[in-house]
Amino acid sequence: MKTITPLENEPSAWSPRIGETVTLHGMLYKIREMSGFAFLLLQTRAQLFQCVWSPDFSGFPLEGLRPGSAVEVTGLVAAEPRSRAGFELRLLTCQVLNRPVPEEPPVVVNNREIPASLETLLDYRPLTLRHQKERAIFRVQSALCAGFRQYLLENGFTEIHTPKLVSGGAEGGTEVFTFDYFGHPACLAQSPQLYKQMLTGVFERVFEIAPAFRAEKHDTARHINEYTSVDLEMGFVRSFYDIMRTETALIRSALAYVRESCAEELRLLGAEVPEIAAIPSLPFDEAKAKIAARFHRPITDPLDFDPEEEKLLGMLIKEETDSDFVFVTHYRSAKRPFYTMDTPGNPEVTESFDLLFRGMEVTTGGQRIHDWQTQTNKLRARGIDPAAFESYLSAHRYGLPPHGGLGIGLERFTARLLGFDNVRRTTLFPRDTHRLTP
Amino acid sequence: MKTITPLENEPSAWSPRIGETVTLHGMLYKIREMSGFAFLLLQTRAQLFQCVWSPDFSGFPLEGLRPGSAVEVTGLVAAEPRSRAGFELRLLTCQVLNRPVPEEPPVVVNNREIPASLETLLDYRPLTLRHQKERAIFRVQSALCAGFRQYLLENGFTEIHTPKLVSGGAEGGTEVFTFDYFGHPACLAQSPQLYKQMLTGVFERVFEIAPAFRAEKHDTARHINEYTSVDLEMGFVRSFYDIMRTETALIRSALAYVRESCAEELRLLGAEVPEIAAIPSLPFDEAKAKIAARFHRPITDPLDFDPEEEKLLGMLIKEETDSDFVFVTHYRSAKRPFYTMDTPGNPEVTESFDLLFRGMEVTTGGQRIHDWQTQTNKLRARGIDPAAFESYLSAHRYGLPPHGGLGIGLERFTARLLGFDNVRRTTLFPRDTHRLTP
Repeated sequence: MKTITPLENEPSAWSPRIGETVTLHGMLYKIREMSGFAFLLLQTRAQLFQCVWSPDFSGFPLEGLRPGSAVEVTGLVAAEPRSRAGFELRLLTCQVLNRPVPEEPPVVVNNREIPASLETLLDYRPLTLRHQKERAIFRVQSALCAGFRQYLLENGFTEIHTPKLVSGGAEGGTEVFTFDYFGHPACLAQSPQLYKQMLTGVFERVFEIAPAFRAEKHDTARHINEYTSVDLEMGFVRSFYDIMRTETALIRSALAYVRESCAEELRLLGAEVPEIAAIPSLPFDEAKAKIAARFHRPITDPLDFDPEEEKLLGMLIKEETDSDFVFVTHYRSAKRPFYTMDTPGNPEVTESFDLLFRGMEVTTGGQRIHDWQTQTNKLRARGIDPAAFESYLSAHRYGLPPHGGLGIGLERFTARLLGFDNVRRTTLFPRDTHRLTP
Repeated sequence: MKTITPLENEPSAWSPRIGETVTLHGMLYKIREMSGFAFLLLQTRAQLFQCVWSPDFSGFPLEGLRPGSAVEVTGLVAAEPRSRAGFELRLLTCQVLNRPVPEEPPVVVNNREIPASLETLLDYRPLTLRHQKERAIFRVQSALCAGFRQYLLENGFTEIHTPKLVSGGAEGGTEVFTFDYFGHPACLAQSPQLYKQMLTGVFERVFEIAPAFRAEKHDTARHINEYTSVDLEMGFVRSFYDIMRTETALIRSALAYVRESCAEELRLLGAEVPEIAAIPSLPFDEAKAKIAARFHRPITDPLDFDPEEEKLLGMLIKEETDSDFVFVTHYRSAKRPFYTMDTPGNPEVTESFDLLFRGMEVTTGGQRIHDWQTQTNKLRARGIDPAAFESYLSAHRYGLPPHGGLGIGLERFTARLLGFDNVRRTTLFPRDTHRLTP
């Protein structure tokens, strides 16, 4: 019998000292042959290092090395003011651990930009993600999730894992993917909505970061059919403003985390992370009127925004308040799901909100109905048989705290943060009406 | 326009001082009427508090209060050595924020145990999860995830979100749920296996905690059809022992996190969190022989364990080494998927392992094939057309580091940790061949 002891991991942040000899592993990113020597860019887990090969000190031939080779090198750290890091690595030895197939790749991914259409970028994802900038996008996304979770755990939220396989028509109405579950009709969850509400009666505050599935046929830059939803739900709210205040704190905290942990990625992407002190908020009707007045646009749909209006509202708020974010509140009842609480005294509108980030909706949230009778009545008023929601309503029967919550579209949020118009750019392997691979 | 400022959250850990007046919100858990006064147990986000109602100091009637009522109370903190916390709350005021429907619930959930079958426990999940012990299970599970992620982020792993909707037969062979994706056959991902491997060429180290779907018809205490998979994959491993050493460090770190953050939950559940210094490891064939010899059992299936053998091996290792964990290595090639690396010089067995925790497999892992030609050959040898894995193999073509990884079944791990035999007990809303609701 052997004994397995814990792996001692090398420290994540490595600060090389001039004059020391180090061993690094990584993927060869680029080889630039000069006259009599060569620059090799090595992509390590942390960053890209400039290495120098020269017959004067490198005890191995350059031949046979290609971008995509996995290598372990030893080298001497030498001062080099012209390299961004302030040093370069003079290669002494190089062990090749794996080689790519010797052929030209279909896309060049080691220049400053990838010269390819979005389609090509997505078709060759296993290759194109290796580009410095593509990789940086998803390191920021990883940090964003870590930042969200850090805030939530510190503020008493319990992480939950709710089922994605649900019985037919779980959330009512809208388009879902359906399949056969051992002889029973089933569908893929569009959100953890009903489960997270039920669980406010158990944990008071819950969150989940998980896939959500929408069978919508929209083929736009804002839509994908599988996305990552950052969901939270909290009990004992006094009003839906408490949820907006929580989201303000959550985003401020997550962006601070990103700023601190992804400085190099943000520089590479030329992204600016906004500072948040407070977020302006205005009711939907007022926002509609404001856009119409400022941009001389007629109001064609008084019940909802179109994407252009969201963009204009974002511009307008940025002008007026310098905020990249704006809350829009009191959406029309007719446009919100059955669990949304109507505004007391004005049942035409709801205790709900969206958050717009740089002109695009990234969050929908609001207070929910906690009273069993009120929820049952609202279902009936919408022509839905409460029996179809028996288990959901049982949570109301046993008593739920006043509660509300929100969902943030992770890919959309990342896109707005990093300045991408198409949400596919911030999805590792996007799924849309035309794309199921890679 | 309003301005939304960040919510100041109350501190998660509250240390009451004797003599102070506090305001708390929570759900009434239990009301015990005595002669002339009453005990009220209040379930807050953090814990259960003993409150006392008396006409002498409580300015509200007891009538109308029921378990399941959401309340905000003010009370005086008074010393009470007979309460576990060392104090009780003398209720001064009580505001009822929501009331349950006045009826007897179908299951009593505020006694020491829930007197119900597993079926009933699961049928009434929105109610039964409110029991102190049920709730504690999932607070431990939440902490376990937080502990896993803390280790992974500190050790250079990037969090990824891979698609759960994949084109037909993504991982080959075994049972998958299939559905129609805009006119194309699609299925639900059984694991992020192929994606996480591809991404070692991008990020070197990646992890994902996400749902996985298996259409297996097994109806056992160990199987559910949707589970949460804690997946990691790492590049530049020297051998699969590096992965086992990483898992040892990962679990040690996560269990320390649970021990620190869930003391009260662990006490409630009577659970003992094992200390890990090192984990014993032995090859599959040796383990088989050892079980046969020690328990005088014939070897019926020389290629795989049955659940009973895993249990016996766990007992045997516990006796010999006092370890609750044991790694079994070198599983037969015939029993491992196509991406598994065969052992050099002995292609009958593989560079793979399982981790058993208290007699049940909770992890499968191993080193994968990183060379394009080797992987292509192995697919062909198994009668699989490499064209079906074009995008996966493209990652090998462009060069991948030597890599490997593992997947931990979160519900199984939680079950072993807390001493439950049935994995449904550690799943909020389990899905099995008979159950798609709640």
